[in-house]
Amino acid sequence: MTMFHEGLLLRAYDLVAAFTDANAKLATAESCTGGLVAALITEVPGSSAVLDRGFVTYSNRAKADLLGVRDSALSQHGAVSELVARQMAEGALRSSTADVAVAITGIAGPGGGSLEKPVGLVHFASATSAATRHREMRFGDIGRSEIREASVSVALEMLMEGLADYTAGDDGDAAA
Amino acid sequence: MTMFHEGLLLRAYDLVAAFTDANAKLATAESCTGGLVAALITEVPGSSAVLDRGFVTYSNRAKADLLGVRDSALSQHGAVSELVARQMAEGALRSSTADVAVAITGIAGPGGGSLEKPVGLVHFASATSAATRHREMRFGDIGRSEIREASVSVALEMLMEGLADYTAGDDGDAAA
Repeated sequence: MTMFHEGLLLRAYDLVAAFTDANAKLATAESCTGGLVAALITEVPGSSAVLDRGFVTYSNRAKADLLGVRDSALSQHGAVSELVARQMAEGALRSSTADVAVAITGIAGPGGGSLEKPVGLVHFASATSAATRHREMRFGDIGRSEIREASVSVALEMLMEGLADYTAGDDGDAAA
Repeated sequence: MTMFHEGLLLRAYDLVAAFTDANAKLATAESCTGGLVAALITEVPGSSAVLDRGFVTYSNRAKADLLGVRDSALSQHGAVSELVARQMAEGALRSSTADVAVAITGIAGPGGGSLEKPVGLVHFASATSAATRHREMRFGDIGRSEIREASVSVALEMLMEGLADYTAGDDGDAAA
C-alpha cells in the first residue's frame, strides 16, 4: 500500500532504475509541490542510491538562502517565473552532489493567482552541468491537490530529460 | 481529492491553524520520510504562512552539509540514532527562520536493517530555542510505505509538542 497513485509510482520506479543504471544522482528543489517529488521518489526501495538531497523552498528567503536565487530575480520576475525556476534548479545542482536537479515553482491555489499568473501556472526547470531546460505549464484552476500532482508528473519527465542531457553531455538549451 | 489519507490531512489542517494562531514558523528535516511531512503540510492552503523550508537529507553528506550533523555522530552512532535526530532538528532550526523544527531518521526497509537497528526503527526530534525533544519508535517490519506514513503521524505530534515548547518558552528536555 502506498499513498501515491500506481501510475506515478511505477514511473518513479522507472526513474530510480534509470538513474541507478546511469550511476547518476539527483536533487530536487520544490516550491508548490512542497516535497511531493522527493517523497514519491523515496517511496522506491533503493532510492537512496540516486537521491542525494531535496530542498523544500517554500519561502522566498529559503529560495535565496539554500539555492542562491537572486533577490533581483524574485523582485523583478516573481517567485513563479522562468528565471526563478532556472535559478532554483541550477542552485540545487550547485548545492548538492547531484548530476541532475529539478525545480518546481507555481501557484497551486486556491489563493495567490492573478490575471497574468493564474492559479495552475507552474514553471519547471532541470539542470545538469551541460544544460538547463525550462517548461511552463498552465493546468488551470483544477484544484490544489490536482495541480500539485500534475506538477509531480511533469517533474519526473524533466528529470528523465535531464538524465538524457547528463548521459549525452548534450546542450539542452540548444535542443529545448 | 488528495493523495493523503483524510485523518492525516485533517491533522495537518489543525497543525497549520495552530502555528498560524501562534504566529510561529516551522521547518522539517527528513530522511526516511523523504519529504512526506513537508508535502502533507503544504497540501493545506495557507501553509506558506507557517512552513519556512524543508530539508530532505537522504545522504549522510546532505545531513552534514545542510544541517551541520557532525561526522563523529554519523560514524559513531549511525544515521539512525537519537544523536543524529537531535542534531538534524537543531540544525534545521539554526539553518532556517523557523521557531520549531522536526527531524525524522529511520530504516524504512525493506533492506538496511540489523539486529540492533531493525527495519521500522525511527528516531524523531523536535527543536525550539528552548528545548530539544526526542522520541524513538519501533514500528516493526510492517512495510516501507506503512513505516513512512506512521512516521509522518509521529512527526506531526512532535511538531505540536514543539509548538507547545515554543509558546511556553518551556524546557522540554526537563519535561520529556
